Amino acid sequence: MMSCKEMIDACLRDCPWGMRDTVSVYAPANIALCKYWGKRDLELNLPVTDSLSISLGALGSHCTMSIGDEDAYFLDGVWVTPEEPFAKRLCSFLDLFRGRDGCHYRVEAVNTVATAAGFASSASGFAAVVMALDQLHGWRLDARTLSIFARMGSGSACRSLWNGFVHWYAGKEEDGSDCYAEPLHSDWKDLRVGLVSVDAGPKSVSSREAMNRTVATSALYGGWPQQVDQDMATLRDAIAARDFQALGLCAEQNAMAMHATMMAARPAVLYWQPATLEILQAVWSMRAEGVPLYFTMDAGPNVKVLFTEDARDQVLLKFPDAQLANPWET
Amino acid sequence: MMSCKEMIDACLRDCPWGMRDTVSVYAPANIALCKYWGKRDLELNLPVTDSLSISLGALGSHCTMSIGDEDAYFLDGVWVTPEEPFAKRLCSFLDLFRGRDGCHYRVEAVNTVATAAGFASSASGFAAVVMALDQLHGWRLDARTLSIFARMGSGSACRSLWNGFVHWYAGKEEDGSDCYAEPLHSDWKDLRVGLVSVDAGPKSVSSREAMNRTVATSALYGGWPQQVDQDMATLRDAIAARDFQALGLCAEQNAMAMHATMMAARPAVLYWQPATLEILQAVWSMRAEGVPLYFTMDAGPNVKVLFTEDARDQVLLKFPDAQLANPWET
Repeated sequence: MMSCKEMIDACLRDCPWGMRDTVSVYAPANIALCKYWGKRDLELNLPVTDSLSISLGALGSHCTMSIGDEDAYFLDGVWVTPEEPFAKRLCSFLDLFRGRDGCHYRVEAVNTVATAAGFASSASGFAAVVMALDQLHGWRLDARTLSIFARMGSGSACRSLWNGFVHWYAGKEEDGSDCYAEPLHSDWKDLRVGLVSVDAGPKSVSSREAMNRTVATSALYGGWPQQVDQDMATLRDAIAARDFQALGLCAEQNAMAMHATMMAARPAVLYWQPATLEILQAVWSMRAEGVPLYFTMDAGPNVKVLFTEDARDQVLLKFPDAQLANPWET
Repeated sequence: MMSCKEMIDACLRDCPWGMRDTVSVYAPANIALCKYWGKRDLELNLPVTDSLSISLGALGSHCTMSIGDEDAYFLDGVWVTPEEPFAKRLCSFLDLFRGRDGCHYRVEAVNTVATAAGFASSASGFAAVVMALDQLHGWRLDARTLSIFARMGSGSACRSLWNGFVHWYAGKEEDGSDCYAEPLHSDWKDLRVGLVSVDAGPKSVSSREAMNRTVATSALYGGWPQQVDQDMATLRDAIAARDFQALGLCAEQNAMAMHATMMAARPAVLYWQPATLEILQAVWSMRAEGVPLYFTMDAGPNVKVLFTEDARDQVLLKFPDAQLANPWET
């Protein structure tokens, strides 16, 4: 098996190294409409199935990066001590890129989406770091290679290099060279995402652990890949046809199925809080009353609602604290 | 395929018909520790898998039955009009047994377990009706045949003829002649079940519809039969060893997996209310504090807790409205 380091070294072999002092980049967070759930390779973050996401536009990660004498990381303006899990994870990732002279990096990340609250800040964070590395070193890599690099930091980060809809291909190669994301053309400009937060303590089970435990122990996981194949086709058709009902219903059912696979893991993983269920029921009630509104959920208790701009007032009336995102806004 | 009527006529061919005027019988409700979820034959109520239950002892159905000039049904002392679904279902079932002279039945059922609140009253009700029919007509059928007859009224009714643990065999025959239940020997006398009710309106989806929809549309159902095979073995071992932790954990995980299969149905079936989740979390909290307490759930929002007599006070302190059952009490 190829390691991340070998894969990255191979990609960078012929790159120029035209260093810049400081660069600033931005990457949007993204929410999967068809989930990434299960890895075929744990080190390279190669997924079992394709997935499809929508970006959160202006909700994501700003990253300013420069070459320094030693690594130093700042998150939302606060220095992150080397002992913190975030620092260790970022440092390991940066180790893959330091080049022959073993340079050090100063990284200042500012998230406009709630950090570590299940709102995909690691995806936008790693995508931004990869974009920053490319500019800092002057590699001028193509988008596909950047997507592959971002994937090694955090799987879903490979989908955070673009606005709008993004399709992540699972690929078949052992080295992951055909496992990258690319944007889907769409001018569906009135689509919106609302982040509805459930007040809950820190996750008892990380999403990484939940995913791996599900694949290893859930008797129901076997049916997931086939469901994803079907949902990917449904979502791509819905996007091509701008069929919001088909898109929303499929995203909602896909999220339910993902949570179902983890509830059947042993021990079970249950992220839902009573308040989570209240939100799902509110969405179903509103839909029964004629408001086209759907939800999706990731590995946590929060809920994301999908709607179109004309339902904005009704969504805010029901969920006054929702953080709204326009997938095409920069 | 054989019909219910043909199957029953074959069993009754050589039976005596020594009619009695009136009989009174009792059958306990039962709660599955490994669930019955999915049919291989919709008319004969033949299940896809084996299942294993524990009775609710004194919580069940008393049934007084007599021969009359026309059918008349009373539930908890109230006459049931022929238009009600319960009357239609019971009448269709009784049609299978009326014999050559087409006799009519007066049925008075009194449930000591909440009717139609997801507490398995149809299981004890149909079991009691079958026991009453046997005595009324003087057939003297063996327990296996009574179990088969009860199954045709309501699948899980075949497990409601005994106290304690009961194993229902799925069987392989098309006519269901090897699909019956039988009690498991156990002297595990301190085991208890608590019924914790969640205040919810009538079910939006019947358990019958939920089961059939899950089998027909849930991509995750494919993994269920294999999980059941494993859980049946675990539960039988736990019963033989009187290992409460193994029993409780397996029952809890089996219930989670069953609910998971239906959440992945399309449309999804989600019986849980916010209050349901609060109860699950309370059980997990108590267990974390050292109280050996587990839950199971059926096709509804209510929760059943499993514990041993020594935890009775703690259970009642947390769930003061719980209805407690001793599986061996008559």
